[in-house]
Amino acid sequence: MASVDVVVMAAGKGTRMKSSIPKVLHRLAGRALLGHVLGTAAQLAPRRTIVITGHGAATVESFVQEAAAGQAASALDCVRQEPQLGTGHAVQQAVPLLPDDGVTLILNGDVPLIAADTLRALLGSCAGERLALLTVDMPDPTGYGRIVRDGDAVQRIVEHKDATQAQRAIPEIYTGVMAVPTAALKRWLARLTNDNVQGEYYLTDIVQMAVADGVPVVASKTADRIQVDGVNSPVQLAELERAYQLRHAQRLMEQGVRLADPARLDVRGRLECGADVEIDIGCIFEGQVSLGDGVRIGPHCVIANAQIAAGTVIQAFCHIEGGADAGGQVQVGAGAIVGPYARLRPGARLGEEVHIGNFVEVKNSTLAKGAKANHLAYLGDATVGERVNYGAGSITANYDGANKHRTVIEADVHVGSNCVLVAPVTIGAGGTVGGGSTITKDAPAGALSVARGRQVSIPNWTRPAKKAK
Amino acid sequence: MASVDVVVMAAGKGTRMKSSIPKVLHRLAGRALLGHVLGTAAQLAPRRTIVITGHGAATVESFVQEAAAGQAASALDCVRQEPQLGTGHAVQQAVPLLPDDGVTLILNGDVPLIAADTLRALLGSCAGERLALLTVDMPDPTGYGRIVRDGDAVQRIVEHKDATQAQRAIPEIYTGVMAVPTAALKRWLARLTNDNVQGEYYLTDIVQMAVADGVPVVASKTADRIQVDGVNSPVQLAELERAYQLRHAQRLMEQGVRLADPARLDVRGRLECGADVEIDIGCIFEGQVSLGDGVRIGPHCVIANAQIAAGTVIQAFCHIEGGADAGGQVQVGAGAIVGPYARLRPGARLGEEVHIGNFVEVKNSTLAKGAKANHLAYLGDATVGERVNYGAGSITANYDGANKHRTVIEADVHVGSNCVLVAPVTIGAGGTVGGGSTITKDAPAGALSVARGRQVSIPNWTRPAKKAK
Amino acid sequence: MASVDVVVMAAGKGTRMKSSIPKVLHRLAGRALLGHVLGTAAQLAPRRTIVITGHGAATVESFVQEAAAGQAASALDCVRQEPQLGTGHAVQQAVPLLPDDGVTLILNGDVPLIAADTLRALLGSCAGERLALLTVDMPDPTGYGRIVRDGDAVQRIVEHKDATQAQRAIPEIYTGVMAVPTAALKRWLARLTNDNVQGEYYLTDIVQMAVADGVPVVASKTADRIQVDGVNSPVQLAELERAYQLRHAQRLMEQGVRLADPARLDVRGRLECGADVEIDIGCIFEGQVSLGDGVRIGPHCVIANAQIAAGTVIQAFCHIEGGADAGGQVQVGAGAIVGPYARLRPGARLGEEVHIGNFVEVKNSTLAKGAKANHLAYLGDATVGERVNYGAGSITANYDGANKHRTVIEADVHVGSNCVLVAPVTIGAGGTVGGGSTITKDAPAGALSVARGRQVSIPNWTRPAKKAK
Repeated sequence: MASVDVVVMAAGKGTRMKSSIPKVLHRLAGRALLGHVLGTAAQLAPRRTIVITGHGAATVESFVQEAAAGQAASALDCVRQEPQLGTGHAVQQAVPLLPDDGVTLILNGDVPLIAADTLRALLGSCAGERLALLTVDMPDPTGYGRIVRDGDAVQRIVEHKDATQAQRAIPEIYTGVMAVPTAALKRWLARLTNDNVQGEYYLTDIVQMAVADGVPVVASKTADRIQVDGVNSPVQLAELERAYQLRHAQRLMEQGVRLADPARLDVRGRLECGADVEIDIGCIFEGQVSLGDGVRIGPHCVIANAQIAAGTVIQAFCHIEGGADAGGQVQVGAGAIVGPYARLRPGARLGEEVHIGNFVEVKNSTLAKGAKANHLAYLGDATVGERVNYGAGSITANYDGANKHRTVIEADVHVGSNCVLVAPVTIGAGGTVGGGSTITKDAPAGALSVARGRQVSIPNWTRPAKKAK
Repeated sequence: MASVDVVVMAAGKGTRMKSSIPKVLHRLAGRALLGHVLGTAAQLAPRRTIVITGHGAATVESFVQEAAAGQAASALDCVRQEPQLGTGHAVQQAVPLLPDDGVTLILNGDVPLIAADTLRALLGSCAGERLALLTVDMPDPTGYGRIVRDGDAVQRIVEHKDATQAQRAIPEIYTGVMAVPTAALKRWLARLTNDNVQGEYYLTDIVQMAVADGVPVVASKTADRIQVDGVNSPVQLAELERAYQLRHAQRLMEQGVRLADPARLDVRGRLECGADVEIDIGCIFEGQVSLGDGVRIGPHCVIANAQIAAGTVIQAFCHIEGGADAGGQVQVGAGAIVGPYARLRPGARLGEEVHIGNFVEVKNSTLAKGAKANHLAYLGDATVGERVNYGAGSITANYDGANKHRTVIEADVHVGSNCVLVAPVTIGAGGTVGGGSTITKDAPAGALSVARGRQVSIPNWTRPAKKAK
Repeated sequence: MASVDVVVMAAGKGTRMKSSIPKVLHRLAGRALLGHVLGTAAQLAPRRTIVITGHGAATVESFVQEAAAGQAASALDCVRQEPQLGTGHAVQQAVPLLPDDGVTLILNGDVPLIAADTLRALLGSCAGERLALLTVDMPDPTGYGRIVRDGDAVQRIVEHKDATQAQRAIPEIYTGVMAVPTAALKRWLARLTNDNVQGEYYLTDIVQMAVADGVPVVASKTADRIQVDGVNSPVQLAELERAYQLRHAQRLMEQGVRLADPARLDVRGRLECGADVEIDIGCIFEGQVSLGDGVRIGPHCVIANAQIAAGTVIQAFCHIEGGADAGGQVQVGAGAIVGPYARLRPGARLGEEVHIGNFVEVKNSTLAKGAKANHLAYLGDATVGERVNYGAGSITANYDGANKHRTVIEADVHVGSNCVLVAPVTIGAGGTVGGGSTITKDAPAGALSVARGRQVSIPNWTRPAKKAK
């Protein structure tokens, strides 16, 4: 099969988005529209991919550069279209970068859900020598370019405004996606004119040139409209987001995941689930999240970049936000119990059977097997040993206003309530810290360390009275 | 155009609501049904508005009085209908207050979503001299009064039970809303009888009187059924609430607001949004809320009476509840980061780039630019200077059991963890408060102030053993 | 009427569930599918109920034993079907336990929403002497056994694959539920053969035997498809869950409960509501919950096993989780204000007008009338008197690492901020505990008790500087 080169149209303004962000950078399921398209294109292993930029070109180009950095396989370049003189003019900009011996696949940066299989079928129809158009039947095709056929062969694409009454009744429309032999494409592009009301160069004009040249024009029709839906407004973006999420939920359920309400799940990234995973209502998953066998996620949880091992229970209202890099990922060991209202931040690493309770925040800290912090506490930059009991209201004072320091709490330590451990500090193994203590120097292993005032009582004390206003 | 006087029917019991609250006071989108109707009526700048009360009259009347206080423009009065002898009888109660030279517009207090434009069209149809009925086509008109026409002119309204088979096939029904020249209305009202099975005086009987008197009866038909839907049960209330919210979400998106899920947004009041605002799932907005350009609202937030400046990020699970008065409004400065799990209460005023983190509560306090309170803290009745770092677990003890006092934390102060600042107290500029300190008297600027016990350790301490039961 | 004995088919594997949990133990609305069926069966007061187990038999049987323990009225037994040789073979296993003089009602353990009234109608059709089949019309009956009638009488059930074109057009299908005179059932079961492609014994073969024996076969058709929907996959489970929840929401609204969004309510157990109850979006109720008159539940609350008295307001993000036993139930007194972000755990008992505020956890504690704990606090194993003000950040240190002890705070005590009360300890009536104190011995009534260091200041203190990396 001929080599494939991809051209992605990403120069459009997207006026109806009413946004300062270029249209193709708006996010669907947490990822830029253009990111979806580039990701799908990459699945085809193209020789090169050329993104046509225009409105917001600098922003789009820096997005593409980042995407290119993460995807070493094929060349990824941007070509700027300035001014924007139509779809044909856009593709003309890519001509210098397109080798003659391949097939050019033209995609749209604002049509995010096109699937690789659909594109493979289109490339199959092209077969290196035909002009292949991706088409779809629309219940209401008003406004779209209709596919006019003579038998199976496509004759031309008629714009809605130019269509006869009979042509307007045609439900099959052109989706904006095509595969075309590059040598022929270049020939036809060179012959485009802007001899029309808008004064633009239309890519679709090449269809008639192909027919005139005797090159077969074929339509590859998809039955799945969502794949070819474009995003032109926040309303369309929201509709496509919901369609995407419902499909994703369906796919998870088919794998055996049990969802309390498929309409109330949002996955913005990659969610991997073991067997017998249950997810309650209102949860959001972002980045890379994996849930082991038998994990249960309670209602209204937000979980990003985390590995949660088998048998763990995440209770309601948890906020787990690991970093996108390996060091920042949150890890939760098997059989842990987290929440409700627990917040795990980047670098939180919980061992097996760790308990993190309500209103507890953990950041850049390692807790060994069986450690517990159940109530109203903060653990930052800490190393916590096995079976440690970290008291309610206790805080690691890890920040001296200028630098961060580590707190080490060795195995079997019992930290009382409302303590402050002023880092850098170590509590030796088996030690006890009395409730209400502020620990500023290392506490010996096995000892009871306290730092608090003596209790005194002043009898018959008169409390303040309500002042007259 | 003739002056408009409005009569609002609000005497009904609403038995199917199964509530002790009068039907017209049930809330849709956070506002009483009657409040919606009075607000829409006020947009027409009527000469006067008369609310007919009956069931729960005292409660409804005091609601109307409050509404009148907030809307100085036109007279707003209540007239009590006791006993309730039908819709015609209801309007008869208003007769003494209706000047003869105007047009009377009759609205229903339990039909909340009627739009001013629809009423203007109806008043246009009336033109000061015709009886104009607001009508709508219903897919299933069973139970409603049908509009019987002779060509364009309306002949009469036939109740469902009195309708012939042919009349029952008429989809056009009377909505309960009409505009009628007042002088004629009075004439017809005086001739109403209760000569029917229910023994009630029906307002709709005036249609035939108008026809008999040669006064043209015209129908002004709306295509928007939601505008004329009444609320008679909690099921209908919930349906209308959802219809309202979806429309509101649609309108926001058309302005450029990006909603993660339009079906999971609730606006109960007025939400103003700048450009590039993003709102995640499950959020609720109440009262008056404004969001500046580029504000992002995380999932599951509840925000009432707040001004949030450009570029601010409100993370998941925040609860921001300003007061309805200017003093109580919550203000969040540009570039602030709030949450997750932050609670801002009345009078919280955050400057630019302030950070309020998890499990932090702020009430009646001002934080200057760059101040931070990131973990498990309480700031009440406090004035916090620029760049202050307010430690984890620290509390302003603003209440002595009788009176509230202020805490002043001057610029560049660093408050350690788990401190108590016993108000009234001032921490001087650049001062440091050691972790675990209870500060009861002013702390000098630039000093380290501590108030805690010395750390001692008792070696080989034996912890309590588990008691046998 | 003849005595009823129930056979519940619960031996199936449920491969499409992709789960290690037996299919009938998957939960819908918080209750095992089989639990729903057994609960409905119990409403018919059957003489005995026999559950046919197979896949995961031990697990299912122990579930049934627990269910039997909670339902003294009728005998509840399991019979194991091993290997599984078809539906007829399954019922054959129950034969020894079925008295000849009754009617056998055959139910499916994976069809959870069948209603008792529907079964009563079916038993009425059986009338102790006919074979009565529960049937339903399906819009797409593909794959189901069709009901072939001769006039009113049922002739036979034709499996989809054996059906003629004309038979496939029949929308009426067999639901898997039947009522049959037991003596006849036994006679027919004895004559079943596995003379078919699958080599299984089909229960439906008895229809033709009944016809042959001259026993009338009647169909009792339900119009309510949800009642006969089975669960074979996570997708079907989620669909049925949503159908169940929407119906439940509808029923609550018909009782007068006002729901902000019926599509965002989850009731997993029994929710009893007084008059004028309002429930905001995203709430979940589990176990036994009762809400008194005028209770308002804010958005995103999770409430299990709790009694909440009249006039109480539960604000956003509350997590109330009582235990299932009487001692563990959470009780909230009339006029209390709870939340936002309050967590009430088993044994929390709040008196009238108690206030529990943000980030406060209460466990196994009693708070008398008017007591308050408004901010960032923990109350565990405590007895709190009337009008006590429990300061922000204060903690009852109820656990010494081995045992739990009680804290007693008598009436009118004022506990300052960030205190630790080390149990066992008593604060005498009217006493005051100074902010930041750690109280380790009883504090006298009426006294001010403090335990903290003296405040000192070190002038011109130099804070740590940012280290060079």
